[in-house]
Amino acid sequence: MGTALESYARGRWTAGADGVPVVDAVTGEEIVSVSSAGLDMAAVAEHAREVGGPALRATTFAQRAALLKALAGALREHRPEFYALSHRTGATLFDSKFDVDGGIGVLSAYAALGARELGDDSVLVVDDPQSLSRAGGFVGQHLAVPRLGAAVQINAYNFPVWGMLEKLAPALLAGVPSIVKPATPTAYLAELVVRKIIESGLLPEGALQLVCGSAGDLLDHLGPQDSVAFTGSAATAERLRATPAVLREAVRFTAEADSLNCSVLGEDVSPGSAEFGLFTDQLVTEMTVKAGQKCTAIRRALVPEHLVDPVLEAVSAALAKVVVGAPTSESVTMGALAGLAQRTDVRAAVEGLTRSASIAFGDPNKVDPVDADPERGAFMAPVLLHAADSEAPEAHSIEAFGPVSTVLGYRDTDHAVALAARGRGSLAASLVTADAELAARMVRGLAPWHGRVLVLDTDSAPESTGHGPPLPGLLHGGPGRAGGGAELGGLESVHHHLQRIAVQGSPAALAAVRGGGR
Amino acid sequence: MGTALESYARGRWTAGADGVPVVDAVTGEEIVSVSSAGLDMAAVAEHAREVGGPALRATTFAQRAALLKALAGALREHRPEFYALSHRTGATLFDSKFDVDGGIGVLSAYAALGARELGDDSVLVVDDPQSLSRAGGFVGQHLAVPRLGAAVQINAYNFPVWGMLEKLAPALLAGVPSIVKPATPTAYLAELVVRKIIESGLLPEGALQLVCGSAGDLLDHLGPQDSVAFTGSAATAERLRATPAVLREAVRFTAEADSLNCSVLGEDVSPGSAEFGLFTDQLVTEMTVKAGQKCTAIRRALVPEHLVDPVLEAVSAALAKVVVGAPTSESVTMGALAGLAQRTDVRAAVEGLTRSASIAFGDPNKVDPVDADPERGAFMAPVLLHAADSEAPEAHSIEAFGPVSTVLGYRDTDHAVALAARGRGSLAASLVTADAELAARMVRGLAPWHGRVLVLDTDSAPESTGHGPPLPGLLHGGPGRAGGGAELGGLESVHHHLQRIAVQGSPAALAAVRGGGR
Repeated sequence: MGTALESYARGRWTAGADGVPVVDAVTGEEIVSVSSAGLDMAAVAEHAREVGGPALRATTFAQRAALLKALAGALREHRPEFYALSHRTGATLFDSKFDVDGGIGVLSAYAALGARELGDDSVLVVDDPQSLSRAGGFVGQHLAVPRLGAAVQINAYNFPVWGMLEKLAPALLAGVPSIVKPATPTAYLAELVVRKIIESGLLPEGALQLVCGSAGDLLDHLGPQDSVAFTGSAATAERLRATPAVLREAVRFTAEADSLNCSVLGEDVSPGSAEFGLFTDQLVTEMTVKAGQKCTAIRRALVPEHLVDPVLEAVSAALAKVVVGAPTSESVTMGALAGLAQRTDVRAAVEGLTRSASIAFGDPNKVDPVDADPERGAFMAPVLLHAADSEAPEAHSIEAFGPVSTVLGYRDTDHAVALAARGRGSLAASLVTADAELAARMVRGLAPWHGRVLVLDTDSAPESTGHGPPLPGLLHGGPGRAGGGAELGGLESVHHHLQRIAVQGSPAALAAVRGGGR
Repeated sequence: MGTALESYARGRWTAGADGVPVVDAVTGEEIVSVSSAGLDMAAVAEHAREVGGPALRATTFAQRAALLKALAGALREHRPEFYALSHRTGATLFDSKFDVDGGIGVLSAYAALGARELGDDSVLVVDDPQSLSRAGGFVGQHLAVPRLGAAVQINAYNFPVWGMLEKLAPALLAGVPSIVKPATPTAYLAELVVRKIIESGLLPEGALQLVCGSAGDLLDHLGPQDSVAFTGSAATAERLRATPAVLREAVRFTAEADSLNCSVLGEDVSPGSAEFGLFTDQLVTEMTVKAGQKCTAIRRALVPEHLVDPVLEAVSAALAKVVVGAPTSESVTMGALAGLAQRTDVRAAVEGLTRSASIAFGDPNKVDPVDADPERGAFMAPVLLHAADSEAPEAHSIEAFGPVSTVLGYRDTDHAVALAARGRGSLAASLVTADAELAARMVRGLAPWHGRVLVLDTDSAPESTGHGPPLPGLLHGGPGRAGGGAELGGLESVHHHLQRIAVQGSPAALAAVRGGGR
């Protein structure tokens, strides 16, 4: 039996009794038990507001930017430990670097942003004064200050490090204390990272607390200065959003839900061309990195009807070379899902998809992992589907959160845009084409339904960061099914933790306000 | 019996049966009956999305800015008709200009903003490209496009024109069709304005629909591209926010609720000084304009303890000169509340406030209006209260939405800031002081709880627009009790109707996207 995973609350590490066992995704061996039982959630929220908030607000934006930089440096030292634990989530070394190094990179990016743009003051000057009168004796200007509440961050299981740090970084930079609640299946890795952060001594007490296990009644204790940032399923987002205290107190709530992202192959592309290869290679990458457990992964591959067969062939051929198995084994190119429960969910989703699609490659129920037990480990072979009727609802509504994607044929550009919109809001789309004018028209068509669109061609491919990875300086989030939120996006995500205020008065009074009354 | 007020839906004017009678606030005479019975709300929403949206999106930001300018010009011609109807809501000529001219001014302000900053394209370029790779072959940039849904705008009864146009202007400029639902007590004035807009022929069909009466099940038919902007009570905001479709579909929802705004008299001010007069004059203005029915009106006057008596004396003396009566009578300086039901509410609120406050001036149950019947007209004399215990909860939680304000003493600056925060989120605060350094410290203390703070001194007073009026270029909205939304604020309120999207690709691809693929 594993040890009880500890939460860090009100300045102490404590474990709850009777925890849920969490097992190694590869071996099935129990790692820890997880429970938040006994935590006084009202007191946790209060500790953030009364201890962490004042300490953070006593520093300036520039000081907090420096703190993020130091934090990134401190965590970088511990990467080998993080990778070791990350492998137990089913992640290969590539996957682990994506999560760990990616997350540390977000800290660094916000550190640079803060140093460059936010100034050495506790108040942010948002814009220049605007004249509100003819003679100029009355002006207005927007400032922004840290909100006085706690930022509750509820994370998904797929990126225990990156997903946590991308929410933590903007809150810390803003000067707002965080309460982090990792997803239980991979909470042990989030816990190790938080432990290293706390041990670094860089953060003032109360700036970061960790709740391992259920969030309990935490959301019932939130008020008008608090916020919730949630990543996970659309159904859970809907339930949390309906919390009476959240509705009553106008708690800021953002959600980033898994979405049915698409990749579109342009009508101009022919088999054998460079763009054709970019499209199929990227699809295979998105299906297999993190075993397809990425909220931005390509679930729908939209291709011109006459290219459906060539695409199915090329992708199937590439998938045949994927080696599934223990993430630390040398030949392995795709690791395990996060757990057996997740595999059950993915298999059920594939079954749903097959109501209107046929399997072109792979068997959802059969896998032969290298150096691992197929029953004890949460392995799954990649599965490529093809929906002959691209209008059928399943591919546009069922998300198989694993190494699964469906190829759909489209008639023309308008049809492709219409099919993309059938996802009712997605995080990311890719468009692979050599025709910049076609790209321009399609981007404008895809735009209302997406948070991010990648235009991939031979010019951008050599340096492209790819379809999947969100970037700290760009919007991460999408409308509708994708949650309607925005997790990243440079200054925008810092503003999420600030109260913007319009100040009116004489030019001299506003100058004094900007100066801080010192 | 009055005529049935018509809604404008799906290109036709239609009236519902069995309407609620709406009476003249001054005479009690029935003006119209109001009902939305028979309107197919799903079809109304569909008409906005399928007819209004495409027509608006076929124009550019610059074209829509020009449209707003033309609309302002067209409405300006009808001001005398609007004033005549406005008087029947209880409004004096001053009040009516505030509402009518103020609203038309918002159209003009957004017209100017659009012409100046948004460009002659259907896509808005939000920022400059940022390099995402070392060699610069991969860049990212944010664009914004009109959302494809309907903007549902639910307005309060106090500003039937201004409140409607401040929501309509940014939506129109963004290229998103609106469904306006005015508050029933003053819907007849909103209807006249919408009728003049439709008759102007300036808007494409479907860009504006009007639902007079209940919104029925309109919100149940909203989807991921739709939005709701609500002004009214915090309780109704909470109820609407909990609509299952709104939660499920991540419908954008903003609220601007009435709030317990404060005005703070600086510790530096002494009776007889210019600032003392500015403070008391402004308080009287805020209590009496629109008979105190302003969401930004000063409900709490925070004054240094030793100045409580002088303030009560000065304000009482000024209130004694207020002449309540028929808004068209020459000597009258304060009109009626919007209706008898509203007066009943205000009287009940005053009774609640007197649990911990005493009445320093006025009698909530007695009024002798000039040229009007005190029983048939919704008149009420201004009431000034004083809460000896400034910590008692009533003044910080009960809103009397009429000519009512409470004076509260404070010990020092920190105490004043703490008392202001007791409102749990307000739209606006004023700070009257001649000490710019004191102003600076207090603004920073008030900032997390407010959407706007006015610093009033002898420098800014001659040109100040005052405590109450929101301005198109500045944030209007506040945290917590004030709804957590932002109705105005220049470009920010246009972005509320746009989908922001990050586009990644080669510099050439992004240039083509910006160019529109033409």
